[in-house]
Amino acid sequence: MAVHHTLDVRSVRLTSGPMADWQALNAAATIPHCIVQLEPSGVLANFRRAAGEETGGHQGMVFADSDLYKVIEAVAWEIARTGTRRFDLWLDEVIALIGRAQEPSGYLHTWTQLRQPEKKWAEMEWTHELYVLGHLIQAAVALDRAAGRSDLLEIAQRFADLVWDEFGPDGRDGICGHPEIETALVELHRHTGDDRYLILAGRMIDLRGHGLLPVGLLGAKYFQDHTPVRESDSAAGHAVRQLYLNAGATDVYLETGDASLLTAMDAQWDSVHDRKMYLSGAFGAHHKDEGFGEDYELPSDRAYAETCATIADLHWAWRMLLAGGSAGPAAYASVMEREVHNALAASIDATGTRFFYANPLQQRPDKVSEDAAPRERAPWYPCACCPPNIARAVAQFGAYVASSTADTLWLHQLAGAEIDLPAHLGTGVLRVATGYPLTAGIELVVDGAPAPGAILAVRIPEWSAGSLLVAPDGEHAVDADGYARAPLVAGGRYRLDLDLTPRLIRAHHRVDALRGTLALQRGPVVYCVEQADLPAGPAVDDLILLPDEGIGSNADGTLTLTCTVASEEPLYTANGEAVHTSASPVTAVPFATWGNRAPGAMRVWLPAHWWETRQIADGQLFAEIARPNKPKEAQ
Amino acid sequence: MAVHHTLDVRSVRLTSGPMADWQALNAAATIPHCIVQLEPSGVLANFRRAAGEETGGHQGMVFADSDLYKVIEAVAWEIARTGTRRFDLWLDEVIALIGRAQEPSGYLHTWTQLRQPEKKWAEMEWTHELYVLGHLIQAAVALDRAAGRSDLLEIAQRFADLVWDEFGPDGRDGICGHPEIETALVELHRHTGDDRYLILAGRMIDLRGHGLLPVGLLGAKYFQDHTPVRESDSAAGHAVRQLYLNAGATDVYLETGDASLLTAMDAQWDSVHDRKMYLSGAFGAHHKDEGFGEDYELPSDRAYAETCATIADLHWAWRMLLAGGSAGPAAYASVMEREVHNALAASIDATGTRFFYANPLQQRPDKVSEDAAPRERAPWYPCACCPPNIARAVAQFGAYVASSTADTLWLHQLAGAEIDLPAHLGTGVLRVATGYPLTAGIELVVDGAPAPGAILAVRIPEWSAGSLLVAPDGEHAVDADGYARAPLVAGGRYRLDLDLTPRLIRAHHRVDALRGTLALQRGPVVYCVEQADLPAGPAVDDLILLPDEGIGSNADGTLTLTCTVASEEPLYTANGEAVHTSASPVTAVPFATWGNRAPGAMRVWLPAHWWETRQIADGQLFAEIARPNKPKEAQ
Repeated sequence: MAVHHTLDVRSVRLTSGPMADWQALNAAATIPHCIVQLEPSGVLANFRRAAGEETGGHQGMVFADSDLYKVIEAVAWEIARTGTRRFDLWLDEVIALIGRAQEPSGYLHTWTQLRQPEKKWAEMEWTHELYVLGHLIQAAVALDRAAGRSDLLEIAQRFADLVWDEFGPDGRDGICGHPEIETALVELHRHTGDDRYLILAGRMIDLRGHGLLPVGLLGAKYFQDHTPVRESDSAAGHAVRQLYLNAGATDVYLETGDASLLTAMDAQWDSVHDRKMYLSGAFGAHHKDEGFGEDYELPSDRAYAETCATIADLHWAWRMLLAGGSAGPAAYASVMEREVHNALAASIDATGTRFFYANPLQQRPDKVSEDAAPRERAPWYPCACCPPNIARAVAQFGAYVASSTADTLWLHQLAGAEIDLPAHLGTGVLRVATGYPLTAGIELVVDGAPAPGAILAVRIPEWSAGSLLVAPDGEHAVDADGYARAPLVAGGRYRLDLDLTPRLIRAHHRVDALRGTLALQRGPVVYCVEQADLPAGPAVDDLILLPDEGIGSNADGTLTLTCTVASEEPLYTANGEAVHTSASPVTAVPFATWGNRAPGAMRVWLPAHWWETRQIADGQLFAEIARPNKPKEAQ
Repeated sequence: MAVHHTLDVRSVRLTSGPMADWQALNAAATIPHCIVQLEPSGVLANFRRAAGEETGGHQGMVFADSDLYKVIEAVAWEIARTGTRRFDLWLDEVIALIGRAQEPSGYLHTWTQLRQPEKKWAEMEWTHELYVLGHLIQAAVALDRAAGRSDLLEIAQRFADLVWDEFGPDGRDGICGHPEIETALVELHRHTGDDRYLILAGRMIDLRGHGLLPVGLLGAKYFQDHTPVRESDSAAGHAVRQLYLNAGATDVYLETGDASLLTAMDAQWDSVHDRKMYLSGAFGAHHKDEGFGEDYELPSDRAYAETCATIADLHWAWRMLLAGGSAGPAAYASVMEREVHNALAASIDATGTRFFYANPLQQRPDKVSEDAAPRERAPWYPCACCPPNIARAVAQFGAYVASSTADTLWLHQLAGAEIDLPAHLGTGVLRVATGYPLTAGIELVVDGAPAPGAILAVRIPEWSAGSLLVAPDGEHAVDADGYARAPLVAGGRYRLDLDLTPRLIRAHHRVDALRGTLALQRGPVVYCVEQADLPAGPAVDDLILLPDEGIGSNADGTLTLTCTVASEEPLYTANGEAVHTSASPVTAVPFATWGNRAPGAMRVWLPAHWWETRQIADGQLFAEIARPNKPKEAQ
């Protein structure tokens, strides 16, 4: 049962700040780039071949159809955002092609149709047939919502109805090796009102974790078939699969109110975000199974940190916010902010046409390109799940900015935006003007007629808990839930000034990979040091941060640190000395911008030179006191 | 060209200490266990099927034949060590079976014979045909040397002669995806005097690195085909393959004196041991490709650290010692000592019948078993390369203890042993009595008639550089090369007392995984802390070592440390405090013995609580002075 309600798809328009800029780049560069890639990658050829219009076998991954569906979904959100008609002809073509590739039964999975048509649903542990249908559904629903265009929806429903017959309550038990269809089916239910789709989604949640899928080398955990969803309190296996599954389970809760699901999701949330999340808002410590690591296993260099895992967590976090999960709305919104400004933003280059699949928080100087983890962003991948997933995520940023409850308009993301008041809160627009997170000030103006008693709740990040919401009726401190509240009044002007003093972050003592290091954050933005800023040396990996020297904030959003340099030494030494020489200023840049210059070493977490204070107080033997950060003059 | 010479295979007998004890366990438990496993694993059935004596396909890995060959080699060294006849009937059976499985041409690779007989030598990047022949040769040479039994040698030579025809100078270019045959061919040359085998080995060294092998997903580096051997100065790809290749290249140098090979191997040595070696003497940071990591990439928890990689490095280190490589004999002997007492010893349990394939230096409390990296040692593996490799390595420990040069008998490993003087140094036996490394004293007695002018050189480990060799003619300090020297005289008694004070070890500042931690070593023995010693808590992962409190040495070989316990805290915090409470004594046990009690958390590297001294001296801004270790009373 939803506690928070989403606003209408067209009612939040981003107008300024990095999220708005990114949407413009997405429309101008990323979506067109993705459309172009669908031909050389063979995705469209597969549909033509399945339609019998071209000879040849299937090209690419078993789930390549989903690349097209994700691009269509991105286009749909783009139509919702701007009303553009420039994709109409392309949509006409590809939707007609999809229709021709669909079998009369409704079945549609070009890999199976071209490779092993006699083995439909026979190897669901790896064929991704339902995963692909999930993306078809999401594209179709988005397009009908955005453009009132139902041709793709009809195709999707024909396929979904076939799945209902095959795997519904009167069919056999079956789940997909890659969760995704669950959340899509709930969306289809919401959009069409057809209860069968919700029943089917719930059934797939119920069936998972009972060993239905044949186990391969990576074990049942790989696809979360090791423990029933309601009993699974620890994130495990392939990160994207776990997080899409969690989004689906939360969606089923939102429509059914099955409390056992929300209880499980609350535990999953803590597992993922308290013990397995990278500072950048990324997930997945292992290359081998693209999987979560164990608790506190968060290596920066070998972070798999797949872009799609961050996108999946965005989906899930928003649903947990709507569901009123136990972490509270500020926790969900804060994680989403971390993800958007760091891991997700780093996955794409400044031109919008090069992408990371893996998003490590450290690049070693001798890093060798690996298939999904190249040294530099690539224009496309043999497994191209990430680029079109970025396109559809960015195009729907607006959906995550605000929500409503009975008497309150909630502003979760502090982005420049126009937000139409939902009808039950009155008429008019809330205008948010800000350059955040580069700049600290946020101005809000109500242009219209809010309903009497309507309230504005603005999230104040935990690192700026002392900031006050200045409203027509006075100043409001943050409430315990992380939001400051004021009456929403016609013509009302509100202002919030956040504290963007750079912060030194340290990790939990169990995070072996980060012991003895500090990271830098300014607002939600995580920083890194790149070799490109030290072209004449020293090596990034020899820098030792002097935290006592303070951090300088520069007008261009970079920071200035002071570091010493460690000298060469043996691999292992007993009772030796590490010599540091030559303190010097070093520039740190937002992690999201790294790798846009020369390829080379990069670090988010810097080894720190500590001076510790020994304290003996009641009940504690020692306390390491991190140095208060001394503000430094901008340079 | 060899600088050092090996002693005759029967002339070094280990008599006391852990290496001797291990050889006894190997004979009593490990070798019989391996022999038993050859039937259920299908290895013997494959030979029967290839011989047409049984129906059915090939069972197990493509290189399963090598399991049998390694066990035969272990038996051969066991015969050399003790003269046992108890394996004779088994040898009669399996060698006859191998002979029947061999094709008339000499070809012998049961996987290819049973699976794709028409595709011999067609897919050498992964079929391991030459790798398997390499192990056949090594077993055959060992058996002929040890037991004067040539039946297996004839089989091996028939196969090797076929390879000469196929891939020799008049044949086509071809190399195996897994190096191994190179070192075996040199051994076959040494044993038979047939130059063709040396030429063939050299040719395979020369051909590698020119892209002969089709490249798969893991790249040409995976099998070291990316750079010519003479130009490759950095260890890369699959660790076992690189190290077997290096052993082969060094072997070719030993017989040909081709200086360009030794130059390359000197650079490889530094790459492997100065930048990519675990403290335990293990290699391989990546699960994904069983590969070396990048420089200084040495995660404890995700260490692949395959047992076979340590064994491969033992082979290579000994050959570098013989070759007079630039690191010097003490460096090679010291690495071998590190490997034998730590990584290799940890790979097997106290019963001699359970094995680790991967040898991580940390076990997380929630560690999930992975295929090659289970939570506990397993009796066998689907890929069973390691257990029989351990058996053959242990059985030939004697070979690595001593060597000779023109006038000197060199004692490299400080083990209880009887060493027959090589003829050019006289007649008689050097008896070494010691419980090292558990106890510090080493007594040596010469029983016989050394040649006039003969010298005894005894390695003094670098951590005990102040120890003196007490000889009949007085005390001798260590020379610059790490050995103390005294005249080898009839009836002479010598004594060495090593400094076994526990040492705190820290890692190079670039080793991200180990920053802020210390390890404990006593002599060559690396220690760890196990949850089994803290059954009532605290969690091993919450321990913080107090290095100032000193380390206590206990009579049973364990150590006693003092640790505090870190309290629970958020995953990431800004300017927060880490609270440590409840200092208490904690037991550390030799890493080699871990996992013999309850499965659970384990750490070699402990987070350390540092009190640092700020120094400002000429030319250096700061120096971290590690605390001198205060000896502590044994408890």
